[in-house]
Amino acid sequence: MNPQVKAVEYAVRGPIVLKAGEIELELQRGIKKPFTEVIRANIGDAHAMGQQPITFLRQVMALCTYPNLLDSPSFPEDAKKRARRILQACGGNSLGSYSASQGVNCIREDVAAYITRRDGGVPADPDNIYLTTGASDGISTILKILVSGGGKSRTGVMIPIPQYPLYSAVISELDAVQVNYYLDEENCWALNVHELRRAVREAKDHCDPKVLCIINPGNPTGQVQSRKCIEDVIHFAWEEKLFLMADEVYQDNVYSPDCRFHSFKKVLYEMGSEYSSNVELVSFHSTSKGYMGECGYRGGYMEVVNLHPEIKGQLVKLLSVRLCPPVSGQAAMDIVVNPPVPGEESFEQFSREKESVLGNLAKKAKLTEDLFNQVPGIHCNPLQGAMYAFPRIFIPAKAVEAAQAHAMAPDMFYCMKLLEETGICVVPGSGFGQREGTYHFRMTILPPVEKLKTVLQKVKDFHVKFLEKYA
Amino acid sequence: MNPQVKAVEYAVRGPIVLKAGEIELELQRGIKKPFTEVIRANIGDAHAMGQQPITFLRQVMALCTYPNLLDSPSFPEDAKKRARRILQACGGNSLGSYSASQGVNCIREDVAAYITRRDGGVPADPDNIYLTTGASDGISTILKILVSGGGKSRTGVMIPIPQYPLYSAVISELDAVQVNYYLDEENCWALNVHELRRAVREAKDHCDPKVLCIINPGNPTGQVQSRKCIEDVIHFAWEEKLFLMADEVYQDNVYSPDCRFHSFKKVLYEMGSEYSSNVELVSFHSTSKGYMGECGYRGGYMEVVNLHPEIKGQLVKLLSVRLCPPVSGQAAMDIVVNPPVPGEESFEQFSREKESVLGNLAKKAKLTEDLFNQVPGIHCNPLQGAMYAFPRIFIPAKAVEAAQAHAMAPDMFYCMKLLEETGICVVPGSGFGQREGTYHFRMTILPPVEKLKTVLQKVKDFHVKFLEKYA
Repeated sequence: MNPQVKAVEYAVRGPIVLKAGEIELELQRGIKKPFTEVIRANIGDAHAMGQQPITFLRQVMALCTYPNLLDSPSFPEDAKKRARRILQACGGNSLGSYSASQGVNCIREDVAAYITRRDGGVPADPDNIYLTTGASDGISTILKILVSGGGKSRTGVMIPIPQYPLYSAVISELDAVQVNYYLDEENCWALNVHELRRAVREAKDHCDPKVLCIINPGNPTGQVQSRKCIEDVIHFAWEEKLFLMADEVYQDNVYSPDCRFHSFKKVLYEMGSEYSSNVELVSFHSTSKGYMGECGYRGGYMEVVNLHPEIKGQLVKLLSVRLCPPVSGQAAMDIVVNPPVPGEESFEQFSREKESVLGNLAKKAKLTEDLFNQVPGIHCNPLQGAMYAFPRIFIPAKAVEAAQAHAMAPDMFYCMKLLEETGICVVPGSGFGQREGTYHFRMTILPPVEKLKTVLQKVKDFHVKFLEKYA
Repeated sequence: MNPQVKAVEYAVRGPIVLKAGEIELELQRGIKKPFTEVIRANIGDAHAMGQQPITFLRQVMALCTYPNLLDSPSFPEDAKKRARRILQACGGNSLGSYSASQGVNCIREDVAAYITRRDGGVPADPDNIYLTTGASDGISTILKILVSGGGKSRTGVMIPIPQYPLYSAVISELDAVQVNYYLDEENCWALNVHELRRAVREAKDHCDPKVLCIINPGNPTGQVQSRKCIEDVIHFAWEEKLFLMADEVYQDNVYSPDCRFHSFKKVLYEMGSEYSSNVELVSFHSTSKGYMGECGYRGGYMEVVNLHPEIKGQLVKLLSVRLCPPVSGQAAMDIVVNPPVPGEESFEQFSREKESVLGNLAKKAKLTEDLFNQVPGIHCNPLQGAMYAFPRIFIPAKAVEAAQAHAMAPDMFYCMKLLEETGICVVPGSGFGQREGTYHFRMTILPPVEKLKTVLQKVKDFHVKFLEKYA
C-alpha cells in the first residue's frame, strides 16, 4: 500500500475518537461508567452540539430541493426569490444536475459580491472564485497543484505550529516537506515574522519552500491576527516569493472586542500594486463554521489572486475529474454570502438567529478562558476567535512516565484518562503540534452554555485529581 | 507545479466542452450560428437533459432539509418515516452535522440490506460499506491507497480500453502505470480473458500489476457482461492476485432483453469459498446514474470484500481527513437503496416514475443503435446498458490530414466540426482510448426521445457531408 497514505495522521478523528465511539457503544449496552454520555468536544460540529440551523438557509435549501414548495404560502418570498435564482442557474433547473466544475456561475457571482462588500470595495472577480467540497477540498487541491520535485527540490510547505492537521495530512499524502513555524504562546499565539524568517532559512537547507499557510482566526489556537501582522506576513511572502494560502474559514467568528477580522486579500490590495500584482494568494471559506455551522453540506469556496493562467487551467482540469462540488453545498454557500438584507421579509429573523449564535459563542469564549485560568496547572490564552480553546496543561513527571510506559504521548495519555473518567472527548495537543515539553488539548466551545459549564467543571475536577495522583 | 497533475487528462470535460461553453456565450451575445442551442451530449447528466427528479426522493430530501415540513399534510407518511429515520441518525438530528467519515450508520445498514436483496441473499456487512462523494471519490481513494513503489515495482492498474477517463486521470495523478486491456469491438465490446492475460504478461516487464478495474455495464461502451465472463475475470484476478475494482454504477441501466446485471460480489460468492475468501474486491455505486440521475448531490457508496484490516484502518484514516461525504448525498443514497415497497403510500407513483425513465432509456438505446447503423461510415454496437452510444466512425484520409494540420486527433477534429456546425457536443473516442486507427465518439442517450431523434438526424447529415467534403 501507499507509504505516503500510511504516513498521514489526523488527530481530530484519531484514536481518541475511536475510543469515544467504543465507550458510547458500551454505554448503550448498559455497561456502567462514571458518566452517562460521551461529549464530543473534539470537533467543531455546531448542529451536533444542539445549535439550530439558520431558518432562512434551510428554507431556501428546501425550496431548491423540492420546487413544488415554491407554490406554498408557508415560505417567505425572499427565500423563494433566492431559490428561483439558484435553480435557474442549474441544468434542468435541478440541484441534481452536475454544475460547472468551478461551481454554479451565479453563486460565484454572489461570492464575488460578498467579498467586495466585506473588503470595503476591493474588487473580486467571479472568474477567480472556485466552489469547493468544504474548505478541506480546496486546500488539498491547491497543495496538490503546487507540490513538485524530489530530493532537495521537494516543495516545502510552511505551516503554523500548532496547526489544523489537515495541513500535515495533505503534506504527507503529497510527499512534500512540512516546514514548521511556531506561534508565540506567551504572546496570545501571535504570528511573529522573525520566526517565519528562521523557519524558511533553515528549511532551505533541505527543501524548496514555496507555500506559506496561515490560519486566521487560528485553529486550534483562536488568535486573531492584527492588520500589522498580516502586512508583515504579506511582505515576507513577497520577499521570499511564497504562495500564500489563507485559511479564513472562521472569518465570522471573532469575539474579543479589541480584535477585527482583516482578510489577506484586502490588506494585500491596500499595500499597493507592488504587492497586489505580484503576491499569489488563495483564501478559503466554508459553510461549516461561522454562525451557520452547516458542516454536513460540505460547502465552501476559494478565491485565487494572481494565479498564473496556466495554473488556473490546470486547476480547472483537475477539478473537472471529480465533476463538481455537491450542488446542495454550493446552494448553502450562496445563502451564506447572500443573506437577507434590511427590508426583506426574513431579515429580522435571520439577524436575530445569527446574532444569537455569535453572541453566545462570544460569551462561551470568555467563560472558557476564565474558568480554565482558575485551574492550577492550566493556562489558557484569550479565545479571540474561531471555536476552540487550546489550553496549556501541566503534566507531572510521573504522568509523563506512565504515558511512556503505555507508549503514548503524555497529552494523549491525559486526554484518554479524561475521556475514560468523564466522557469528555478532546484532542491532544500533539495532534496539532506544540513546542517540545509543552502539552495542550483542543476543546470546542460549541456546547450550550449550561452544558459547557458542566464540561469545564468536570475538566477542572479531573485535572486537580490528575495532578494529585501523579504528584 | 506538480508534473503528475500536468499529465492528467479528462476528456469528458476537456477542450471540446470549453469550446461548447464559448459557443453558448456567443449565442447569448446574438452571434448567428447554424443552430440555436448547444446540446451537451458529452456527459451523463440526466436532469440537465430534462429528466424529472423522482418525487419520493426529493420529498424525503426536503423533509430532511427543513424538518418543519414533517408536520405538513402535503407529504406522504412513508417519506416522513424515512426522513425521521435519517435525521435520528444525524448528530443533533441535522443534515448539517458531520457524519462519521465512513458515512451515517443507518444508511450503511440500508445499503447492506439492499445489496443482500439484490444479490439474492449473499450477505453484506455494513462495516464493509463506505459512503462516498459520488463514485469518483471512492475510486480515487481506493487507488490512492493501493498505489505504491517506484521503477519496475510501480503499481500497474489494468483498465479497459475504451475506459472512463477518471481512471487514467487518477492513475496519472498517482504516478501509477496504466495497463491497457482492449475490449473486443467486433464482439459487442466483450471483455476477453485472453486479452487480460496478454496485458498482464506484457505489463510485468515494466511494472507490478496489482489492480484490475472493470466497468460493468460499460462506460463508454455500453456492454453488459455475461455471468460466464465475470467468472472468468474473477478466476483471472484470483490467479494473478489482483485487487478487483468493479465500477457498477450503471447496475440499474440494462436495456437489452437478453442481458442481466450480475454483480461481481454475487458471482464471487457463488464461485465458492476459495474465491470468496481470497479475492479482494471493491464495488462502486452512485446516486448519479440509474433512474434517479441525482448527479449534483454527489452521493455514492463502495462495498469492500476481503480488504485486509490494516488497509481498512488506513482507509478510514484517509477518509477522516476530508471529514465526511456530503450528508445530503448520503441521504439521497439512502432513498435509492431503500425505496417505497408495495403497500406503502408512495409505491405506485415511485414505480411509475422509475419505470418511465428506464423504459424510455431502453427505447432510446434501441433507437440510437438503429439510427446510427443506417448511416454509411458509422457502426454502432448494441447499447446493452449504461447511457451512452460509442459508435465507430469512418474518418477519410483527407480529414485525418486536415486534423494533423491542426495538431488534433482525427476524432477531436471531427467532434469539433460537429459542434461548430450543429451545436452538438460529444466526446472524441481518443479521450477514452481506442485501438489505433479506429475513431469513435461518446454521446449520451439522455435527451428526450424527440430531441434525441433530431440530434441523431443532425449527426447523420453532418457525417454524410463530412464524408463528401473529405472524400
